[in-house]
Amino acid sequence: MRFSPLLDELIKSLQVLPGVGPKSAQRMAFALLERQRAGGRRLAHVLDQALEKIGHCRQCRTFTEEEICPLCANPKRAISGQLCIVESPADVVAIEQTGQYQGRYFVLMGHLSPLDGVGPEELGLDNLADWLATESFEELILATNPTVEGEATAYFIADIARSHGVGVSRIAHGVPIGGELDLVDGNTLSHSFMGRKTFAD
Amino acid sequence: MRFSPLLDELIKSLQVLPGVGPKSAQRMAFALLERQRAGGRRLAHVLDQALEKIGHCRQCRTFTEEEICPLCANPKRAISGQLCIVESPADVVAIEQTGQYQGRYFVLMGHLSPLDGVGPEELGLDNLADWLATESFEELILATNPTVEGEATAYFIADIARSHGVGVSRIAHGVPIGGELDLVDGNTLSHSFMGRKTFAD
Ligand SMILES: [Zn+2]
Ligand SMILES: [Zn+2]
Repeated sequence: MRFSPLLDELIKSLQVLPGVGPKSAQRMAFALLERQRAGGRRLAHVLDQALEKIGHCRQCRTFTEEEICPLCANPKRAISGQLCIVESPADVVAIEQTGQYQGRYFVLMGHLSPLDGVGPEELGLDNLADWLATESFEELILATNPTVEGEATAYFIADIARSHGVGVSRIAHGVPIGGELDLVDGNTLSHSFMGRKTFAD
Repeated sequence: MRFSPLLDELIKSLQVLPGVGPKSAQRMAFALLERQRAGGRRLAHVLDQALEKIGHCRQCRTFTEEEICPLCANPKRAISGQLCIVESPADVVAIEQTGQYQGRYFVLMGHLSPLDGVGPEELGLDNLADWLATESFEELILATNPTVEGEATAYFIADIARSHGVGVSRIAHGVPIGGELDLVDGNTLSHSFMGRKTFAD
């Protein structure tokens, strides 16, 4: 015997969520049924709506319920002639929060990972090439993650950009501001040395 | 700027789940949108159905989509004259899996916790008293958790049972089978000593 058929089904369905196994799915189901019925109904409704309506921006591929996301639709974002390549919509939010960047984005929704079947097509690099061909960008800023996959992806995209005559830059990697040298991993520290700059007088 | 309005709403709604904060809600929302649209739609549907249909068994209070759960509806479970008191539907499943018990259950859906506003009424102890008054049980088995709250709840219910002339027992606590003495906490070990039995010849 397990729980009632519908409760068993709920516990199973919750395991579609990343990091949720049978035990935490059970805990979630009980909590929803005992204390969070209104919040649970709301979640069911919003989840259904989100999965029906949220797609990818036709231009930059970020998540949006519009054809074209507000950032791409904003003509002011074209003025700088910059295009920043990131792996995830969360990276767009993080960069926007710095207030440092006024250009456009292209969101890969991942990185090259041949073993997982993620190639240039899955990252929308055809669309990127089309975009580079039709709009004249001055600078493409590679802001993929400083991981092996992120670096490989950055190199691949740099080639595409150069073939369209667009200048390419990579965001700097190094010791985080406020970080302590001895707490930073060795790889970051070597990046930080290799990327050193002349100290202002 | 955050994400699109609907995506922000989804990330917020997911935080109704216990143990899910903003970061994991974001990770869940992205995973559902990128890789689990079908599973996500299924979850939305099942969650909605479960919250609409699953209530408490009118007799034993466990979760069920019926008026009376299959266990309570089964006349064979009345033969032994035993009623086992547990804190959670998960405890019923655990005890059923041992195959040792053939009687009935009463599920408290918690334990006495005055500071959280959980008193006898919230645990359905009026219903329990009614049940003890109308059906003649021979033994009430207290299987609440071996915690301070579980023990206090057990004492409280034992009094109700005695006032109805029903015999009361408490499940044994001690060193788990296959456990090692030196890995068991001191409290369990003292319980184990106090509950010692004459060794069979
Ligand atoms: Zn866009
Ligand atoms: Zn029942």
